[in-house]
Amino acid sequence: MEFETIKNTPIYKAFSEVGKKIFLPRSIFYWAERAKKEAEISGTIGAAFGFEKDFIEAGGYRWVPCYLQNIKHFFNTDITNVVPYASIPGLTDSRKRWKDWVIKKSQLDDNKKKSLKDLEKYLTLTLFTPGITHGIFTCCSMFLNQSEYIILPNKRWGNYDNIVEKNIGAKIKSFNYFSRDSIDLKSLEKAMQDVLKIEEKIILILNIPNNPTGYIPTRKEAIDLINLLKNMAEQNKKPLVILCDDAYEGYTFDKDAIKTSLFYDLFQLDENIIPIKLDGITKELLMYGGRIGALTIGIHKNWIKTDLELEQLKNEIENKFSGFIRSTVSNSNILYQTILNSLLSSQEIEKTLQYRKKVEKMLEKRYILLNQELNTIKSDGISIDPNRGGFFLFVNLKSIKATDFADLLLKKYKIGVIPIEKTHEGINGFRIAYSSIDIRKIPEFVSRIKKAMSEYK
Amino acid sequence: MEFETIKNTPIYKAFSEVGKKIFLPRSIFYWAERAKKEAEISGTIGAAFGFEKDFIEAGGYRWVPCYLQNIKHFFNTDITNVVPYASIPGLTDSRKRWKDWVIKKSQLDDNKKKSLKDLEKYLTLTLFTPGITHGIFTCCSMFLNQSEYIILPNKRWGNYDNIVEKNIGAKIKSFNYFSRDSIDLKSLEKAMQDVLKIEEKIILILNIPNNPTGYIPTRKEAIDLINLLKNMAEQNKKPLVILCDDAYEGYTFDKDAIKTSLFYDLFQLDENIIPIKLDGITKELLMYGGRIGALTIGIHKNWIKTDLELEQLKNEIENKFSGFIRSTVSNSNILYQTILNSLLSSQEIEKTLQYRKKVEKMLEKRYILLNQELNTIKSDGISIDPNRGGFFLFVNLKSIKATDFADLLLKKYKIGVIPIEKTHEGINGFRIAYSSIDIRKIPEFVSRIKKAMSEYK
Repeated sequence: MEFETIKNTPIYKAFSEVGKKIFLPRSIFYWAERAKKEAEISGTIGAAFGFEKDFIEAGGYRWVPCYLQNIKHFFNTDITNVVPYASIPGLTDSRKRWKDWVIKKSQLDDNKKKSLKDLEKYLTLTLFTPGITHGIFTCCSMFLNQSEYIILPNKRWGNYDNIVEKNIGAKIKSFNYFSRDSIDLKSLEKAMQDVLKIEEKIILILNIPNNPTGYIPTRKEAIDLINLLKNMAEQNKKPLVILCDDAYEGYTFDKDAIKTSLFYDLFQLDENIIPIKLDGITKELLMYGGRIGALTIGIHKNWIKTDLELEQLKNEIENKFSGFIRSTVSNSNILYQTILNSLLSSQEIEKTLQYRKKVEKMLEKRYILLNQELNTIKSDGISIDPNRGGFFLFVNLKSIKATDFADLLLKKYKIGVIPIEKTHEGINGFRIAYSSIDIRKIPEFVSRIKKAMSEYK
Repeated sequence: MEFETIKNTPIYKAFSEVGKKIFLPRSIFYWAERAKKEAEISGTIGAAFGFEKDFIEAGGYRWVPCYLQNIKHFFNTDITNVVPYASIPGLTDSRKRWKDWVIKKSQLDDNKKKSLKDLEKYLTLTLFTPGITHGIFTCCSMFLNQSEYIILPNKRWGNYDNIVEKNIGAKIKSFNYFSRDSIDLKSLEKAMQDVLKIEEKIILILNIPNNPTGYIPTRKEAIDLINLLKNMAEQNKKPLVILCDDAYEGYTFDKDAIKTSLFYDLFQLDENIIPIKLDGITKELLMYGGRIGALTIGIHKNWIKTDLELEQLKNEIENKFSGFIRSTVSNSNILYQTILNSLLSSQEIEKTLQYRKKVEKMLEKRYILLNQELNTIKSDGISIDPNRGGFFLFVNLKSIKATDFADLLLKKYKIGVIPIEKTHEGINGFRIAYSSIDIRKIPEFVSRIKKAMSEYK
């Protein structure tokens, strides 16, 4: 593969050295695929296969991957859903299913329905990674060289710092997330301008709903944010890669908040904007330990001239990202790809959404009650960040050191929170995961926080 | 964590910049662990929890991770084995089980039994990664800077090249694997000497049984290899990291071949030798698509003075490798960790080994027949590399271009093989995976190869 098409797109301009270099070599897969179609006898596949009866008591005459008899009792599904390799970017049917799901989700917010035809045509076929973390690691590696900047809000998931700074050796350009209960777009704009002074691209992660704050923009805030990004792309004509970390998508509990990912707003917005959607079964389908993430890229119409070029571009993108997946994890768990395919199938999806609705409603009640209770704390010493969904909210502390406070909460009041202290970024507070608190205990939970605070008066 | 203990070991000297920099920050996990023990009400955990009855029809009163009702029918095991996160390096019981399995395997070869007490004491607790590939990627990243060398045989798994060169940007120092039907130790020695001229460490992968050749050393060859490595370490007093890629361990079909990993010979061999054992459930427990790899490090007695230091060193190693896992994939699939724990439990392990024996015997018969049939080809144009186990063997072609030959085999003779051509490394031949050929078809398979070869006379 010569990558002639991708080389003419902003994606390639934005690629790191790794992104430019990596690809999936023709090799085993090419020959194994050909053998599947052309061979009568194939000795290409590096897994053990045999007739089931030859290694399983009362086994059948099927030619299947060899497996151990004593794994069978764990499953109610055919062994071929459990044992074989999935291919590098995932099982094709499951990948199509997830792409369909991405397209379906675009229609959930009445205010910004996108063309189904465009989405079908210009979205890449979803690739699977072992968890959304690996999708983030993949994108950060594909776009960030050592010492280059990625833009993130000061209030962010701590693991971004591990990925970007400790692992890749790149740098975080932090912007102030909130100004007076709203997103601080001026601070984001300045961060982008600062990066553009020294680099020929912008890489930005939008994690909405946000961990740790539970922030989701209102429709109005979203429009302002999108306009800012559009203007930035139009004025500078430099690639603007936007990673939409949509881990908590679907958990929106406030009627003013947007219901769908900003990915849909970014799709086809400007030819220098490269939107990448990162989903996971972790929270979306409530299978935390299943470890399947989904990576889908929005191609801009102007990047290609013909349908043939579009197909070629999709192949080149898939090859490059597959090369990265191959060289880090080989492929992702097969069973959970099978399960997500079932959950999102036309026969099951209504049930799936209905079952999840119960969980959403349960979390929403906790969200409302926790906010209500926290609002009864009349103190200048704390403030709650704007929060409209997700699994968390964040309480800022003015003068009490957050780790000290969390320690006091644990030791004396027997309640657990996650303190976050980053003085150089102006952060001192704690995250409350109402996702894991019994609603009946929320009033007591807040009451103990109040008592602990009163010790500092 | 200050990493005071590891800094005094050869591991730290051998670390790459990533290895030196990465760690798992105290943070969420620290506070969540404390909350588990100290809190009456905890809002630390970032998964959704609830009473099962509140989101599952006919659910119980258990406080469990929220999940979707329509995943249940896939499983015959409790939902808590399927849905929650495993911790970053894996479920503790499963990790202990794998370490016990590593220790048990050390006893399988009568000729080189190791002290069980030493293994128990000086092996780290196994860490899990999503597949052995990720274990290899992890170790390569932890020890190799860009442009540094790793030593590999010229006949090797193609994905090493993706990991080392395309992804990490390091370089492969290739040695000639065979000289007259035996391992070419002179070539390996020269490769090590060449690397030591420019670097202060040696990183080497030993993949035994080898992919693509099926090579396993004889007992005599193994002794010579181990002596070479020991001498190299003694003479140069520089760290010698040896990654034992034991993906195919257990599949030994020749009575002269060693039956256990060279890891056990390297353990406690010299204080500058750092042996790392990389296992996987993929082939060892025949769950290819399960994606669990196992990483176990042998600590040398001389690295520490006291039992307290030993514990501290183990903690530091675990923290650093966990930091890498966290920043690339977060954690590994829970269900397959649960299954491996069951398969290797004292109640099940005899059955597991007995079931696997059937597969081993099946492969062994193919191995014998394929070698016999290939040996009937009387031609100077081909030679078979020494092979004693694993899933494959490798046929060298003298003057026919391997990809042309594979293409002819496919198109005209309808048989599939994997050609490997690396002219700069003197390789031109093809891999036959007898792991996936029905034994009754092997004579026909070889007969067609013969016919194809006769076209070139």
